[in-house]
Amino acid sequence: MQYPEPIAKLIDSYMKLPGIGSKTATRLAFYTIDMNQDDVAAFAKSLTAAKNDLHYCTICGNITDTEPCEICRDQSRDQTTILVVEQPKDVMSIDRTNEYHGLYHVLHGVLSPIEGRGPEDLNIESLIKRLQANPSVKELIVATNATPEGEATAQYLARLIKPARIKVTRLAHGLAVGSDIEYADEMTLLKAVEGRTEL
Amino acid sequence: MQYPEPIAKLIDSYMKLPGIGSKTATRLAFYTIDMNQDDVAAFAKSLTAAKNDLHYCTICGNITDTEPCEICRDQSRDQTTILVVEQPKDVMSIDRTNEYHGLYHVLHGVLSPIEGRGPEDLNIESLIKRLQANPSVKELIVATNATPEGEATAQYLARLIKPARIKVTRLAHGLAVGSDIEYADEMTLLKAVEGRTEL
Repeated sequence: MQYPEPIAKLIDSYMKLPGIGSKTATRLAFYTIDMNQDDVAAFAKSLTAAKNDLHYCTICGNITDTEPCEICRDQSRDQTTILVVEQPKDVMSIDRTNEYHGLYHVLHGVLSPIEGRGPEDLNIESLIKRLQANPSVKELIVATNATPEGEATAQYLARLIKPARIKVTRLAHGLAVGSDIEYADEMTLLKAVEGRTEL
Repeated sequence: MQYPEPIAKLIDSYMKLPGIGSKTATRLAFYTIDMNQDDVAAFAKSLTAAKNDLHYCTICGNITDTEPCEICRDQSRDQTTILVVEQPKDVMSIDRTNEYHGLYHVLHGVLSPIEGRGPEDLNIESLIKRLQANPSVKELIVATNATPEGEATAQYLARLIKPARIKVTRLAHGLAVGSDIEYADEMTLLKAVEGRTEL
């Protein structure tokens, strides 16, 4: 005996999502069948809408339903600073801190020789053009992740952009707030000591 | 700054699923945006189809896209035995073993005084009517889960149905195949000793 086709298809769809195996997909499918009709209709609509109505901003590469995106259009933001992140979701993470009020640029990845991803596979060319077209930009904050690939990408951008007399900075590394020294890894401790500040 | 509306809505939809919090929902939403257009369309369609095309079989309560369900229509199955489970997905779990070839009945839950669920909230009335209408049924196998509620429900059904001279049985309890005695809980060990078989 097989599952009725509508369930089998829904299980297959759920299994295409990352981190969802056949057991979880089955559980989600049966849960969906018991969901409120309106919620399921809204879910189906939001899937299609997210796929159809969103695109990457041609200026910064962030995900948006307008062109250019909300941030690029916002003239009240500091136009002299661009913060570079790996992924669209990083923009939201940084912006939520309410500490940074400049512009963003999304690379859509990091350099990775192992995965065969070079500069031409990232959103770097548009960053260069953007800097050339906007001489008002004074600082580029590279906020790629604190991974070997993120570091290498930051170094690459620094070498590429510094000659244009734009300040290139990197987010501080150190202990996470609220964390124990006992559980911090060696590299983090090393960076925390290097970057120590005076009290 | 907020997420563009299409993403925010999709995150909300994912968060309605069980076990998915805001971080996972966000990750899934961004993943969806990068998915193949056809896969997203198929996903949306399968959600609507699962909700619209499926219903519970009026005979056994299993989920189906036909009426009656595939199993209830199948005259080659043993019509003298009905196996009672809590949920539609349990039907598939049992049927996959290829050991049982009779009919099924889905209760859609278990008795639970704590959650205020009594016999009238379960698919029990239709079971009684089914037994009255089909005097050929000789045995009822109660395969509710090995939880206190599952046990109580099994006891309730046994008391209710035994007077009709139908044999009421329960799935065997014991050690899971491949499991270590060291890690088995006391109740399972007790049931395993009680139900020991001769070699």
